Amino acid sequence: STIPGFRALDAEGVRGYLAADPELARRIGPSRSEADWQVREVGDGNINYVYIVKGPAGGLVVKQGLPYIRIARDWALTQERARFEAEALQEQARHAPVHVPAVHRFDAQLALIVMEYLPPPHSIVRGQLTAGALLPRLPAHVAEFMAATLFGTSLFALDTIRWRQQQARFQNGELCRLTEQVIFSDPYRAARVNRHTTPQLDAEAAALRADPQAKAAAAALKAKFCELQQALLHGDLHTGSIMATQETTYMIDAEFACVGPIAFDVGKMVGNLLLAFFASDGLASAAEPRHRQRRWLLQATEEMYSNFTNTFVSRWTTAVQSSTAGDLCPADIFGPEAAGGAEALQVAQATFLLELLPDVLAFAGAVMIRRIVGIAHVADLDTISDPDIRAVCERRALRCARELLVNPQRFADMRAVAAHADAAR
Amino acid sequence: STIPGFRALDAEGVRGYLAADPELARRIGPSRSEADWQVREVGDGNINYVYIVKGPAGGLVVKQGLPYIRIARDWALTQERARFEAEALQEQARHAPVHVPAVHRFDAQLALIVMEYLPPPHSIVRGQLTAGALLPRLPAHVAEFMAATLFGTSLFALDTIRWRQQQARFQNGELCRLTEQVIFSDPYRAARVNRHTTPQLDAEAAALRADPQAKAAAAALKAKFCELQQALLHGDLHTGSIMATQETTYMIDAEFACVGPIAFDVGKMVGNLLLAFFASDGLASAAEPRHRQRRWLLQATEEMYSNFTNTFVSRWTTAVQSSTAGDLCPADIFGPEAAGGAEALQVAQATFLLELLPDVLAFAGAVMIRRIVGIAHVADLDTISDPDIRAVCERRALRCARELLVNPQRFADMRAVAAHADAAR
Ligand SMILES: Nc1ncnc2c1ncn2[C@@H]1O[C@H](COP(=O)(O)OP(=O)(O)O)[C@@H](O)[C@H]1O
Ligand SMILES: Nc1ncnc2c1ncn2[C@@H]1O[C@H](COP(=O)(O)OP(=O)(O)O)[C@@H](O)[C@H]1O
Ligand SMILES: [Mg+2]
Ligand SMILES: [Mg+2]
Ligand SMILES: [Mg+2]
Ligand SMILES: [Mg+2]
Ligand SMILES: [Mg+2]
Repeated sequence: STIPGFRALDAEGVRGYLAADPELARRIGPSRSEADWQVREVGDGNINYVYIVKGPAGGLVVKQGLPYIRIARDWALTQERARFEAEALQEQARHAPVHVPAVHRFDAQLALIVMEYLPPPHSIVRGQLTAGALLPRLPAHVAEFMAATLFGTSLFALDTIRWRQQQARFQNGELCRLTEQVIFSDPYRAARVNRHTTPQLDAEAAALRADPQAKAAAAALKAKFCELQQALLHGDLHTGSIMATQETTYMIDAEFACVGPIAFDVGKMVGNLLLAFFASDGLASAAEPRHRQRRWLLQATEEMYSNFTNTFVSRWTTAVQSSTAGDLCPADIFGPEAAGGAEALQVAQATFLLELLPDVLAFAGAVMIRRIVGIAHVADLDTISDPDIRAVCERRALRCARELLVNPQRFADMRAVAAHADAAR
Repeated sequence: STIPGFRALDAEGVRGYLAADPELARRIGPSRSEADWQVREVGDGNINYVYIVKGPAGGLVVKQGLPYIRIARDWALTQERARFEAEALQEQARHAPVHVPAVHRFDAQLALIVMEYLPPPHSIVRGQLTAGALLPRLPAHVAEFMAATLFGTSLFALDTIRWRQQQARFQNGELCRLTEQVIFSDPYRAARVNRHTTPQLDAEAAALRADPQAKAAAAALKAKFCELQQALLHGDLHTGSIMATQETTYMIDAEFACVGPIAFDVGKMVGNLLLAFFASDGLASAAEPRHRQRRWLLQATEEMYSNFTNTFVSRWTTAVQSSTAGDLCPADIFGPEAAGGAEALQVAQATFLLELLPDVLAFAGAVMIRRIVGIAHVADLDTISDPDIRAVCERRALRCARELLVNPQRFADMRAVAAHADAAR
């Protein structure tokens, strides 16, 4: 069901839309210069149309969601996704402004967002990693974004009134059902849409669909994804949703934003870094063996996770000590003046971290598995053209992922995970 | 803020209200017999006004929620609570009709429910236990109610679309905040409203408010209560919300209904049975030592929990095998025809039960603690008039409760909990 009054814009429509609004047009060029603006449709995702508009004064991005997904006109998808993306970007900007493109306009009737243009050399991280790049600041930046947004929208920071208003605003059920199906269910059954490197991985795919522990673990994660409503998630945070340079990092494409488990966003990032790690072998060559990139990818996974936990806990401690904490840890129970308060806060934080890691690893395992035997794969592995070489990398990744999914509690920390991944090669 | 057009009824107002509706009046007596009906206000709870109306053809109960609670006119409380109670009763009736009073009418404007009258010898279970009674069928009936309602409103039974609609309908934030405050926070700080048997328990109350492990565990439970939205809870299921005879059992007073952790309803019931157990010593006398009641209360706790888990799991298995299961365990992954399906279901069920018990016990511990050092106590203990005898019972209960709250994982099953409680005497 399309929005009343909705119209899909083409490049000229986008030009006209921006030109008709002085406040937006001013960001691209002086009035009546719109004829000279360059307008290009650059959407390389599965779902929306993305236009880059450049002119003498600068550039803007216009992203529009049609009533169906871009790559399959018969696959309808609610246009409310544009509101979720716009409102998530605005909420993320309250917590980590340097890591999200600014939103200049959200037009509900046209399911359209006008946002800050991230010019070259900004580009999608997945593409850079597939090309062999290292991004030294990526781990710390992603960790900062996750810690700030996930802490800031949790009950460690909010009272339950504001938190429940947030929950009501981000009921993104239709897009969540996509995640629930393609990550937690389809890979574990002979779903028609599934594909894998065949015949090389036929045995592994069949084994997974007969694997009681993997099926049970994936269902438990699905339950956690639906039921554990902790914080506002980006909801689709992977290397394809990040645009970066060597110095800067922006998280984009938050249309899957929803209230869910903190471990989901973190786990999806860990899983995607590990996929890049396992693909790196298959993309290497005699001339370019990529040893440094592979080492860096494991270090990056560790650095990202330790930065995330340290930043999350320090924001938590600061909030309690400044009596600005949310309803879970009020100062009169956990503050320095409360009897046993400081120690209680340490116990609460230690317990939180102890329970977080296995969930992060299980989610990481699940997202890796679905990218190898599910409907949508990743460029990191798909760019390995030789199916035999690709299959070797995928088999290693699958084995590692299954261990993360089914036995996450065996890993004491992310270093142990990195060592396990390295040994799987 | 009162509902527009709201008016509080008195006994005569209730008479007139029922008489003006032939369909309701018919249940009490022939038309124009309303002058002979007996109308009595019997509300013995803290919150609402409850009228019993009896006539030649039968009886009805009318329950009305005013904009403030009954026992404190300055304590405002949303009148939407009446809708939550009515809709919860109707949903519970879909799953366990024999264990809830039928709802004949819900009047949103008057925040009023007309429901089935439960005649004597039905009476509140807490009162019967305090008087020394045993209720042999109570454990199995309460287990049946909890298993049917909690399974039936969970993602084991529903698809996420219906489950999210249910979640949106039962956002009972204002009443949940009461639970969050009085069970998970106030007992762990020197809140003005707290009271305990003084001076006998001064040391224990002070120790609790300086107890890092207890504070952290209580905060983790608060997080679970707010964040883990699994099924439609009764929300206040304790021995004061059950009316029973030796043969029948009805759960009433579901105005705190909300979507939350399955372990909460179960844990609150376990905690209240254990409170009755610890009070039983203090209410005993040479003539009436109550050994049999105490033994029965521990057996009842075990029987209730084992019946609950068996019934929950068998409904789950039946749903999967008949392909009527919810989104968590579809038949094409967990069904008998799916490869490894049956074993996967067993693994999922075993994991679910393994994680459920410690949460049940921790919630049980928290509800016991708040009934001894918090704002609202229980008749079981308060009826022990001698403060020294009461304090002995309360101290034992507190020690047992603290262990359940902080070290729930040490108990392999409910039998171990019963043994621990028995040893605490
Ligand atoms: N703010 C931006 N600045 C520059 N390029 C962008 C921006 N947002 C998106 N893009 C480009 O458009 C592509 C698709 O955007 P994305 O939001 O991921 O769309 P989809 O929701 O269809 O996946 C990105 O991969 C990126 O190349
Ligand atoms: N359906 C009923 N049949 C008979 N008595 C009832 C019924 N519902 C409530 N009562 C009586 O009214 C009292 C208060 O009802 P309750 O629903 O617990 O009110 P509150 O919400 O104020 O606690 C109960 O303890 C019981 O004695
Ligand atoms: Mg994208
Ligand atoms: Mg997208
Ligand atoms: Mg009551
Ligand atoms: Mg009945
Ligand atoms: Mg009540």
